[in-house]
Amino acid sequence: MIGLPDGAPDTPFLAVDIDVMERNLTRTATSAAERGLALRPHAKTHKVLEIGRRQLELGAVGLTVATVGEAEVFAMGGFDDLFLAYPVWATPSRSARLRAVAERATLTLGVDSVEGIEELAGGLSGSGVRLMIEIDSGHHRSGVQPNDAGALAAAAERAGLALAGVFTFPGQGYALDGRAKAAREEAEAIERAAASIERLGIDVVVRSGGSTPTLADADSSVLTEIRPGVYVFNDAQQTELGSCTFADVALTARATVVSRSGPNAIIDAGSKVLGADQPGWVTGGGRLPDYPDARIVALSEHHATVRFPSEAPPPPRGTVVRVAPNHVCSAVNLADELIVVQNETVIDSWTVAARGANN
Amino acid sequence: MIGLPDGAPDTPFLAVDIDVMERNLTRTATSAAERGLALRPHAKTHKVLEIGRRQLELGAVGLTVATVGEAEVFAMGGFDDLFLAYPVWATPSRSARLRAVAERATLTLGVDSVEGIEELAGGLSGSGVRLMIEIDSGHHRSGVQPNDAGALAAAAERAGLALAGVFTFPGQGYALDGRAKAAREEAEAIERAAASIERLGIDVVVRSGGSTPTLADADSSVLTEIRPGVYVFNDAQQTELGSCTFADVALTARATVVSRSGPNAIIDAGSKVLGADQPGWVTGGGRLPDYPDARIVALSEHHATVRFPSEAPPPPRGTVVRVAPNHVCSAVNLADELIVVQNETVIDSWTVAARGANN
Repeated sequence: MIGLPDGAPDTPFLAVDIDVMERNLTRTATSAAERGLALRPHAKTHKVLEIGRRQLELGAVGLTVATVGEAEVFAMGGFDDLFLAYPVWATPSRSARLRAVAERATLTLGVDSVEGIEELAGGLSGSGVRLMIEIDSGHHRSGVQPNDAGALAAAAERAGLALAGVFTFPGQGYALDGRAKAAREEAEAIERAAASIERLGIDVVVRSGGSTPTLADADSSVLTEIRPGVYVFNDAQQTELGSCTFADVALTARATVVSRSGPNAIIDAGSKVLGADQPGWVTGGGRLPDYPDARIVALSEHHATVRFPSEAPPPPRGTVVRVAPNHVCSAVNLADELIVVQNETVIDSWTVAARGANN
Repeated sequence: MIGLPDGAPDTPFLAVDIDVMERNLTRTATSAAERGLALRPHAKTHKVLEIGRRQLELGAVGLTVATVGEAEVFAMGGFDDLFLAYPVWATPSRSARLRAVAERATLTLGVDSVEGIEELAGGLSGSGVRLMIEIDSGHHRSGVQPNDAGALAAAAERAGLALAGVFTFPGQGYALDGRAKAAREEAEAIERAAASIERLGIDVVVRSGGSTPTLADADSSVLTEIRPGVYVFNDAQQTELGSCTFADVALTARATVVSRSGPNAIIDAGSKVLGADQPGWVTGGGRLPDYPDARIVALSEHHATVRFPSEAPPPPRGTVVRVAPNHVCSAVNLADELIVVQNETVIDSWTVAARGANN
């Protein structure tokens, strides 16, 4: 029975099927290479040094990180090319930390405002950091409108900070039937942003996009680089978006049925193991790959209530089941270690080195 | 300006206002004592040894925990009376860990099935553990129906395991206008469950209920004990349920405005700091106590999108704001430490000792 691998700890815990992960890594590395796209995976998904190293071995040009803390962990781990894809607000304290990272690694920072650039220039001029201007391609979170990119490039030039290029996160692709459209919007926004900068005679070398849902549709005639994160493990959201199937889900929580009530089983993995992410378009609080018709209808901290269809009643108490979290980045950030499994036998464990490195 | 206390780390981080926390702890301890209710706070909220000790100093009879891992951490920390309020499935490995805890502390375990009792008896007979039968008082998660409690008490007797009493979690009180009704259902269910056991001539000493929303309405003519967790810190959900006001919120994330767009500010505390809990009845992804009309309209891992009302535009980039998470238990479980603040000056930091102790 798939469930509790030989040598596993007590449930609940997160297990990585290393063969599935390797297939995911290889598939995306190959696809990027074939399309002439540089691959710079987002390490916020896995936060694991061993996985980052494998991504580089397979051809990644460097890693993307989300926080200064993640940049510190990966720089200390020997990674020498890091892009912090976030509109960094460089207080003196944060600038000092970034300068230390920049002594170990080629460091590129996201910016999305003239004020942010001026703040950075104060603490980081002469540090060798390069900037990437964040573009809003339709997700409407951070990032400037494409036509405003030129103003930021000019501000960077005035501040004496080198511009590497432009980037966007097409998060609007996280919607049913939204993937192809988001990829088109991504390319259009990047193209317009680059044009607004080149008009000033400033080069735009890196044109970076990408997310796991838009990966397959990323426009290699515009983009030079993609930054997917989730693809390493995949998750329940990606299966429901259609970016992958259950066979591509490399990370699952392993959980025990501890209680039953009518059509429901209660399992011991709740929001403190799976994360509580639940966008409106998903069908529940995670998915059970071995019970595709079951749904997680309620999630509390240490309980998931799993409803089984009437023709297939819940498994008995004590059964260990696999659960794909909705959003694997959140689940990994809850765990201190990932249990590495091959053929349902534990072969290793990896420290989630950047767990909680959120500032 | 309230925001970044003197001596604070870079944002985002979780800060505890120790004076507010002390007031919360004292108020509930006093109220429980006045009503003749034993207080057994749920430590899953704070996971901090220093706070558990303070709860005992103020009269708590012991602590409640949610997992074997939490029991281990608090037993190693010197706590000698622990109730694991969860339907424990005692595999051999889990039984061995529970026996080790039982050598250090009086240990009471939740059960909600005859099968669970039989499994426990196999590994824990003679260990001195006592059982509490979980009753479903309307939350419909784990727990037996009140009238079925007698059958479990009989099973415990057959298995030679001592019965301490019955307990319930009236989680249905987490609903707008649901608090008083849930407290009534809690008392009725506990009363019926106790009767179904006493009918067999078995004593029911402990009748344990309680959650923070139902605390004020807990029926001390039925219950002997309450187990609130969230009351120590409170959170955005509790303010929206009406169990407290912003003045009672002791824990807030401190976050920086890193980007702006129209009526929105983007701050650097996202779901990896605040947690992603968002039941249907809340008004957003958390609340900003100093901007009561602002709402968190979107939450990603490292960004919260905060919409400000048109008459009060968002604060400028670089401003540090306080954010009450929706569900403080989830937020604390994301942090390795809590920054302790008094009069907006950092005076200490506490290790979240049981962080991630989910199995």
